[in-house]
Amino acid sequence: MTGPTGPGPAIEPPHRDPELDAGLLDPLRAGSPAEAATGDAAFLRALLDAEAALTRAQAALGAVPAEAARAVTDAAADPYRFDVRSIALRARAGGNPVIPLVADLTAAAGEWGAYVHRGATSQDVLDTAAMLVAARTLGGVLADLARSEAALAALAAAHRDTPMPGRTLTQHAVPTTFGLKAAGWRSLVLDARDRLLAVRDRLPAQLGGAAGTLAAFADAGSDGGRGSASGDGGPAGGDGGAASAAGLPAAYARELGLAAPLIPWHTLRTPVADLAGALALATGALGKIAADVLTLSRTEIAELAEGTGGGSSAMPHKANPVRATLVASAARRSPHLAASLYACLPAEDERPAGAWHAEWEPLRELLRLTGAAAHHTAALAEGLRVDAAAMRAHLDLTGGLLVSERLSVVLAPLLGRARARALLTGLAARTRTEGRSLAGLLAEAAVDVPELAGVDLAELTDPTRATGLAGHLTDRALERR
Amino acid sequence: MTGPTGPGPAIEPPHRDPELDAGLLDPLRAGSPAEAATGDAAFLRALLDAEAALTRAQAALGAVPAEAARAVTDAAADPYRFDVRSIALRARAGGNPVIPLVADLTAAAGEWGAYVHRGATSQDVLDTAAMLVAARTLGGVLADLARSEAALAALAAAHRDTPMPGRTLTQHAVPTTFGLKAAGWRSLVLDARDRLLAVRDRLPAQLGGAAGTLAAFADAGSDGGRGSASGDGGPAGGDGGAASAAGLPAAYARELGLAAPLIPWHTLRTPVADLAGALALATGALGKIAADVLTLSRTEIAELAEGTGGGSSAMPHKANPVRATLVASAARRSPHLAASLYACLPAEDERPAGAWHAEWEPLRELLRLTGAAAHHTAALAEGLRVDAAAMRAHLDLTGGLLVSERLSVVLAPLLGRARARALLTGLAARTRTEGRSLAGLLAEAAVDVPELAGVDLAELTDPTRATGLAGHLTDRALERR
Amino acid sequence: MTGPTGPGPAIEPPHRDPELDAGLLDPLRAGSPAEAATGDAAFLRALLDAEAALTRAQAALGAVPAEAARAVTDAAADPYRFDVRSIALRARAGGNPVIPLVADLTAAAGEWGAYVHRGATSQDVLDTAAMLVAARTLGGVLADLARSEAALAALAAAHRDTPMPGRTLTQHAVPTTFGLKAAGWRSLVLDARDRLLAVRDRLPAQLGGAAGTLAAFADAGSDGGRGSASGDGGPAGGDGGAASAAGLPAAYARELGLAAPLIPWHTLRTPVADLAGALALATGALGKIAADVLTLSRTEIAELAEGTGGGSSAMPHKANPVRATLVASAARRSPHLAASLYACLPAEDERPAGAWHAEWEPLRELLRLTGAAAHHTAALAEGLRVDAAAMRAHLDLTGGLLVSERLSVVLAPLLGRARARALLTGLAARTRTEGRSLAGLLAEAAVDVPELAGVDLAELTDPTRATGLAGHLTDRALERR
Amino acid sequence: MTGPTGPGPAIEPPHRDPELDAGLLDPLRAGSPAEAATGDAAFLRALLDAEAALTRAQAALGAVPAEAARAVTDAAADPYRFDVRSIALRARAGGNPVIPLVADLTAAAGEWGAYVHRGATSQDVLDTAAMLVAARTLGGVLADLARSEAALAALAAAHRDTPMPGRTLTQHAVPTTFGLKAAGWRSLVLDARDRLLAVRDRLPAQLGGAAGTLAAFADAGSDGGRGSASGDGGPAGGDGGAASAAGLPAAYARELGLAAPLIPWHTLRTPVADLAGALALATGALGKIAADVLTLSRTEIAELAEGTGGGSSAMPHKANPVRATLVASAARRSPHLAASLYACLPAEDERPAGAWHAEWEPLRELLRLTGAAAHHTAALAEGLRVDAAAMRAHLDLTGGLLVSERLSVVLAPLLGRARARALLTGLAARTRTEGRSLAGLLAEAAVDVPELAGVDLAELTDPTRATGLAGHLTDRALERR
Repeated sequence: MTGPTGPGPAIEPPHRDPELDAGLLDPLRAGSPAEAATGDAAFLRALLDAEAALTRAQAALGAVPAEAARAVTDAAADPYRFDVRSIALRARAGGNPVIPLVADLTAAAGEWGAYVHRGATSQDVLDTAAMLVAARTLGGVLADLARSEAALAALAAAHRDTPMPGRTLTQHAVPTTFGLKAAGWRSLVLDARDRLLAVRDRLPAQLGGAAGTLAAFADAGSDGGRGSASGDGGPAGGDGGAASAAGLPAAYARELGLAAPLIPWHTLRTPVADLAGALALATGALGKIAADVLTLSRTEIAELAEGTGGGSSAMPHKANPVRATLVASAARRSPHLAASLYACLPAEDERPAGAWHAEWEPLRELLRLTGAAAHHTAALAEGLRVDAAAMRAHLDLTGGLLVSERLSVVLAPLLGRARARALLTGLAARTRTEGRSLAGLLAEAAVDVPELAGVDLAELTDPTRATGLAGHLTDRALERR
Repeated sequence: MTGPTGPGPAIEPPHRDPELDAGLLDPLRAGSPAEAATGDAAFLRALLDAEAALTRAQAALGAVPAEAARAVTDAAADPYRFDVRSIALRARAGGNPVIPLVADLTAAAGEWGAYVHRGATSQDVLDTAAMLVAARTLGGVLADLARSEAALAALAAAHRDTPMPGRTLTQHAVPTTFGLKAAGWRSLVLDARDRLLAVRDRLPAQLGGAAGTLAAFADAGSDGGRGSASGDGGPAGGDGGAASAAGLPAAYARELGLAAPLIPWHTLRTPVADLAGALALATGALGKIAADVLTLSRTEIAELAEGTGGGSSAMPHKANPVRATLVASAARRSPHLAASLYACLPAEDERPAGAWHAEWEPLRELLRLTGAAAHHTAALAEGLRVDAAAMRAHLDLTGGLLVSERLSVVLAPLLGRARARALLTGLAARTRTEGRSLAGLLAEAAVDVPELAGVDLAELTDPTRATGLAGHLTDRALERR
Repeated sequence: MTGPTGPGPAIEPPHRDPELDAGLLDPLRAGSPAEAATGDAAFLRALLDAEAALTRAQAALGAVPAEAARAVTDAAADPYRFDVRSIALRARAGGNPVIPLVADLTAAAGEWGAYVHRGATSQDVLDTAAMLVAARTLGGVLADLARSEAALAALAAAHRDTPMPGRTLTQHAVPTTFGLKAAGWRSLVLDARDRLLAVRDRLPAQLGGAAGTLAAFADAGSDGGRGSASGDGGPAGGDGGAASAAGLPAAYARELGLAAPLIPWHTLRTPVADLAGALALATGALGKIAADVLTLSRTEIAELAEGTGGGSSAMPHKANPVRATLVASAARRSPHLAASLYACLPAEDERPAGAWHAEWEPLRELLRLTGAAAHHTAALAEGLRVDAAAMRAHLDLTGGLLVSERLSVVLAPLLGRARARALLTGLAARTRTEGRSLAGLLAEAAVDVPELAGVDLAELTDPTRATGLAGHLTDRALERR
Repeated sequence: MTGPTGPGPAIEPPHRDPELDAGLLDPLRAGSPAEAATGDAAFLRALLDAEAALTRAQAALGAVPAEAARAVTDAAADPYRFDVRSIALRARAGGNPVIPLVADLTAAAGEWGAYVHRGATSQDVLDTAAMLVAARTLGGVLADLARSEAALAALAAAHRDTPMPGRTLTQHAVPTTFGLKAAGWRSLVLDARDRLLAVRDRLPAQLGGAAGTLAAFADAGSDGGRGSASGDGGPAGGDGGAASAAGLPAAYARELGLAAPLIPWHTLRTPVADLAGALALATGALGKIAADVLTLSRTEIAELAEGTGGGSSAMPHKANPVRATLVASAARRSPHLAASLYACLPAEDERPAGAWHAEWEPLRELLRLTGAAAHHTAALAEGLRVDAAAMRAHLDLTGGLLVSERLSVVLAPLLGRARARALLTGLAARTRTEGRSLAGLLAEAAVDVPELAGVDLAELTDPTRATGLAGHLTDRALERR
C-alpha cells in the first residue's frame, strides 16, 4: 500500500503500535536482507532454534527422551506462535527476554514442557541466538560482498588504463588510473570478506549454566546415590551425568552449525569483539568506496555517477548519489557501535550487571548496518557509470602541472638537479600566470637547452603517460582471489 | 496476550513482519513512555504535525488560503492513515522518508494537495519533526527525573546521619553517610534536569528550503512582474513575497511550540549536539546511581536492595538488581550514541551526504535510552531499600582502622606528628595481626601516654562520629531546588 | 631522584628521553597556545597552584599560620624546581601524581612542610588542577574564537550578495550566497563561544577530603576535648573546626578564581561532562568550517583557498589546504575523546577504580585539540581567499537548471501546476541533451505561451537573482553578538 | 633551529619545555616498555629507519649507488642528531613531520643528500614508520602477555578445585572455582595474543609515491629516450625503471622486516583497522581481569589482593588495587581510540584531508595503552594473592541457598517437580527468615520424606561439591597453548 488509507478498518491495521520501529528513520536498512535477518522475528526464531537444539543435543546424549526433543522442536518451529511484544514487556522483570520465552515455550510443549531449557541459563540461549543471527546475517553480507567484488573487478579491468587525476589533500597531485582505484576498492572488499569469513567460521555456541560450570547438566543425572525414581507423572527423566554434560556443548553446537566453545564465554567476550571489529572494518571499507563516489560525483567533477540517482521534481538537474550517501552514513555510525561492544569486554563476575545487556542492540544494529551497506554497495558497484572523458579532461585542469613531478624526476639527471628545478619552477610559474600549458612552454624553452635535444617532450608531458605502474599494480591486485 | 498462540489465526497476527523491532532486545525501553514517544508512529505524527504547521503558518501570513491549511491539517491529523512501512521502503529512492510522506499527504489532502510542503525541503520537515519528538520525549524524561529527585531528597533527609563506609578504589577509606550519598545522587539528577530543560527550551524549528535561503517561499509570491493569475483550477495561490517569507520561520515555530531559528541550521547542527550532550550527561548521571546501587547490592555488602529484585525459581536466594542493571546498560551505550552525533557536526555544503542521515537513528536511540533510564531510575529510587544496620556493621570491618585518618589528624597536635604516626602505625599493624579493634588497643596504650589523659578516646574511635561535615553538606545540597 | 632538581647537568641534550612527546605526531597542536597551556609543565603548575591555594585558604580562615601559607606558596611558585618525570614514575605506586608531588612539595617547604596538603585527598588537588588548566586553556580558545568571529563577520558582510551554488548531497541545488555561508560559520563559532563561556564560568574547585565529607578539615581543629598542645618542634597547629571547614571550599575556590562547589564532586562528574560536551561542540563546529573549505578548495571547484597553502617542490601546482586538513582531523578525533569522558560519569563509590584515572589524558587531549583547532581556524578565517568569479561561473555549470525550482514556483500560478511542470520537464531534458541553456530554451518556448507575455524571463532565469532571502538572513545572523 | 643539533647547552634543565608530555597524567604508561617504544624518539627512529631502508632497497635493485645507501643509513643512524621539537614545529607548514625530517636528513647526508626520500611521498615513510613502531611495541606486549599467561596458568592449576561463589548480576548464583575463573582469564590472554600475533605478522610497509602509482620510482630510470647524462656534480643517478620499481616495495619491506604490500594502501586502511581491533580486544580482555580483581578485592569480599597495594599513610588499612585500577582505566579508554581509527577508514581520494592525520595520535596512544596495560597485568598476575579461605567462607553467606539449583535438579526426579519445588521454596523462605542453614532445615525435613531415605544430603548441600564440571573445564582450557 503506497498511499493514505481510508478510515480505520475494522481489523487492526498493521504497524499501529506506537512502540514499533519499521524502518521509518533508516532508508539504508529498509527492505534489505540484513533487516529481515536481524529483526525481532529473526531473533525470536534464533532463540527458539537454540532452545530446541539444546533439547535435541541432550536427547542425542541420552540425557532426555527423544520424544521430548521432538516435542520441543515442534513447539519451537513457528516463531509466529509467540507474541514478541508480550515477551518484550515481560522481559523487564528479569532483565532478559529468555525468561518469558521459556515460560511460553514450556506451555507450548505441553506435557514435555519440563524438558525445555533444562540446565541452561538465559545467557546460554541469548548468546547462542545472537551468534546464529550473526551467522545468518553474514551469509547475506558475504553474498553482497561477492557481488561488489565481481563488479569492481570488471571495472578495474575495463579501466586498467583509464587515466584520471590522483588527488591528495583535495588537490590534483599526479595522474593515476581509475583501474587502480577500482582495484583498491576491490581489495578492501576482499579484506572485509576475509575477516568476516574468519569470524563467521568460529562463531561459538554458548553453554555453561548458571555460573558457567555446566553443573546443572552434570547434576541432572545424579540421583543422590540411588536408582532413578519416577517423576511427577510426566515423561521420565534421563540419565545425564558428568560425562554426558562434558560432551553437551559440542553436541549442542553441532545441532546449530556453530563452533563448539572451549569453555563457556559468558564473560569472555572475544566472539562479540571479533564480530565488532570485522563488521566495523567492513562498513568502513565500504565507506571508503562511498567517499570516493561522493567526491567524484560532485557536479564540478562528475567523473562517476550512480546508475540511478535520487531525483527531485523541483530540481530536475539533481541526481543525488543516494546509495553512496546511505553507505557513507553507515560508515559514520559503525565505529561507535563497535566501540560500544569493545567497551563491554570488561564484564565482571560470571555474568555482568549491564555489560552484557548493553551488547544486544548495538550488535544487532552493527550487523544490520553492515549488511544493508553491503547490499547498497553491490548495487552501486554494479550500476556505477564512469565518465572516462571527464577524467581525461581533468588531467589538463592544472595546465599540465600534474606532470611536474615526472618532469623533475626525468630532467634532473639530464640537466642536473639545480638546473632542472630552476627551469621547472620558472615554467610552472608562467603556466599559472600566463594560463598556458606546461607542455607548450617547455617545448618553447627546450629550443635553448641542448641537453633536451632528442628527448620526447610530448611523451614526457603527456599526463596519460604518467601513470607509473598503475596498470601493473591493478593486474597484481586483480590476481588476488 | 502473554502466552503462545494456538495455530495461526485467520486474521494476520500483529508483529509478524520480520523487519519490525518491538523491543525484544531491549527490556530497558520496553513499555516505557520514551519508547512510545520515539517510535515510528511518534515520528510519523511529528512529521505530519510539521507539514500541517507549515501550511497553517503560511496561511497565517496570507501566503496560502485558510482552507488549504485546514484541509492539510485535517489530512495530517491521523498518523494511522499512513503506512509507515510503505513510506520506509519508498524512502530508499531519495534517501529520506519525507519525500514519500509528502506524496501520501498530498493525495490525502485532495484538491488542496498542492499546498502540502510548499516551498519546503525534506530536511525542513525531518529536522523539525526530530525536534518535536525530542521536546515530547523530554517532557516525560523531566517528569521522571522529578520523581527521582523527590525520592532521593527523602532518602537523603531520612538518612542524613546514617553512617556508612566511604569507599575509594574499592577499599574502605573513612566513614561517610548514606544521606550525603543520596544527596549527591540527587544533585546529579538536578544537573541533568537543568541541562535538559535548557536544551528543551531552545529546540528550534527548521525552515530554509532547498539550500537554506527561503527562496521558494519568497518566490512563491512573485508573478514574474505581472498581476496574479489563476491556477490550474484548484484553490488560488496566495501572495507570499519576501516579507512574508522572512516571517515564516517564526510563525512556523510558533505553530509547533518550538523556538524560532535565527537562520536555517541544515548544516549548523548545534541543536543536535546540544541534545547529545545533555542526554549523555543525563544517562551517565543515572548510571552513577546505578553503579552505586549495584555495588551496594552485592551479596557481601547488601546495604541496598531494589524494592523488587528480579528472581529466579531455581535460585530462590537471588534478587537481582534488574533496574540498576538496565540503567547501567543505558549508561554504557549513551556515550557512543552521543559521539555519533558530535561526529556529524562537520556537515559539508548546504546538506551533507551522510552526516545528516547518520544522525536520525542515534538521536532517536539516545532519546529513548535516556527516557527509559529515567523511568527505571524513578522506580528504583522510590523503591530503594536501605539497610542502615548493615552500613553500621561494615564500619567495623577493618577493626576500626576506618578512623585512622581522624586519629592521625587529632593526635598530631597532641603528641607531635612523629610520635602520633609511630603510635598509630604500631596500633594499626597490631589491629591486623591480632584481630583486635583499634579502639581497644588505643585505650590500652593510652594508659602510658600522659598527653592522652582526658581525651575522649571512645568518641575519637567511634566511626559513627567520624563523618565530618556530611550532615552539613547534605543539608546544603538539599537546599538546591 | 625524588625531589626538585638543581640546575641541569652539563651536557644533557634536549628531548633525548625516549618517553617524551614533543608534538612530533601532532602538527595541529605543535606550537599552539593550547599546547603550552595543557602540557605537563602547565599541569604541574596547576597542581602546585592548587596546593598553595589550599594552604592560603586555610590561613585565611585561621586554620593554619599565615607563615605556613607564605612558605608553601613560595615553595610552589616555580614548577621547574620539580622533576616532572620523577613524579610521573613515582605516581605508579599510588596511581596518581599528587602523592609524589606532595612529598616533593613538603620537602621544598622545609619546616612548614607539615602544612602541605593538610586534610586534602589527592583527588581534591588533581581535579582542581584540571579545572585550572581548563580555565586557562579556554582563555586562549575564546580569544581565537573571537578572531575567527571577526574574520567571518567581515567575510559575510563583504560577500553578502556574492552568489554561489548551494550544494546538497554533493550536487548543485539552488543558488545561495557566500555571505550566508560565512554567516552560518560565524554562528557556529558563536555557539561554541557561548557554551565554552558558560562552562568556564562555572568550573568548580574540588575539596572534600578522603571520602568527600571534609572530615579531616573539620577534625583538624579538634583536640579531643582539651586545649591545644605543642607539636613536634615545627610551627604550631591552627584551630580549624567544623565552622572553618564548612567555609573552606569557597575560600579555596576564591584563591583560584574557580567556582565554589556546592558539595564535593569526586564522583559527581558533571563539570567534566560539561567540558566534554562544550569542547566537542566547538571542535565539531570548527570542523564544519574546515569541511566546507576543503570541499570548496578542490582543484575542480577552487572557490576558496587558504591564504598560505602547504606546498610541494615536486608538485608546484599544489597548494594544500593544510590548516583545514588539520582542523578536520581534530574534528574527527574529538567526539571519541568526549565519549571517553561521558563514559566516566558512572563512577562508583566515593572514588572509582578506573573511571577517574581514565579522564585525565582524554580531558587534556580534548582541551588541546580544541585549542589548537581554534588557533588554526582563526588564521584560516583571517587569510581565506574567496574567488567570487569562480562561484559565479559555477552557477552556469548545470546549464541554468539551478533555477528550476524557482521557475516551477513562479510559473505554476501562471500556467497551472500541470502545464508548468510539463513545460519545465521538457526544457530540462533538452538542456541536458542539447547542451543549451535553460534560459535560452525558455525564451524560445515562451513565444508560444501567451501567459508568459510580459514576464521578465531574463530576471527569472538569472541564477544570481535566485538567492531568496540569503541577504536578509545574513544581516540577521550578523546582528547576533 | 632547523637541523640536527650539536651538544646541548650548558644549563638547560630537563623537561622544562612547557609543551612536553612526560607521563605526568599517565601513571599507567610511565616507565613501561610501551612508553619508550611509542615515544617521539621511537617514532623518529622509525621514520629514519624507513628513509634509510628505502635508499638501501633502491641500491639493492641498482636504482641508486651503494654509497648513497651507506651514507643515508649512516646519517639516519642516530635519532638524537635530529631535533624532534624543531621537526614538530616545522611540520605545521605541510601538515606532516616527514617533510622537515627529509630536509634535515638530506642535510645530514651531505653530498649524498639527493638520494634521500627519492621518489617517495611523506605518507610512504610515515605509514611505514607507524608499522615499525607497532611491530616493535607488539614485541613487548606479547612478552608481557606470555608472562600473564604463565602466571594465570599456574593460578588455574593451583586452584583447580578451590570453590568460590559464582556471581551473576552482583548476586551469588551457584558455586564455581577460582581455577575456572583464572583459566578463563588466561583464555582471554591467549585470544589477545593470537590476534596480536596475526596482525603483527602482516604489518605492511608502505610505498607508492605521490598518488600510489610508484610513478616517480619508475620514472627515475627513464631518460626521455636517451642515454644517461651527468648530474649536477654530485653522485650520479641510478638506472631504475619500471621493472626495478615493481620490485621495490618488496625489497623495501624486506629491509624493514615488514610484510610486502600487495598495492599501496594510502587510502586502503585495513592494516590500521586490524591493529585497532586487535589492540582494543587485548586491552578489553585485560580489563576483564582487572574488573574481577577489583570486585574481589573489595573490603567486604577480599578474596583477592594485589601483591603490593597502593598504600596511604593516613589510612594504613588501605591497600588499593592500583594495578587493576590502572588497567581498568586503559580498558575504558581503548574502545574510543579504536573507534577513532575505524572512523578513519573512509579516506577519500589518494590521500585524505584529515582522515590520515587523525590516525597518528590515537594509534600511538592505543599501542601505548595496550602495552602498558599488558605490563601491569603481568605483574598483577604474578603477584596476585588468593584467599581460598575467604572464598570458602563466602559460600555460606546465603545460608546454603547457593546449592538451591542443585537441589532442585536432583530432587525433581525423586519427588516429582511439583513436590520438589514446594519443598525447596518453603525451606528457602525459612532459611532467610529463621537465619538457619538450608542444609540443616533439609535434614530435619527429610525425616518425613521417605523418598529421601538413603540420599546423601550432606553431600548434596555441600557447596564445595556443587561446582559441576569446573575442574574438567579448567583442564581443557589449560590444554590450549
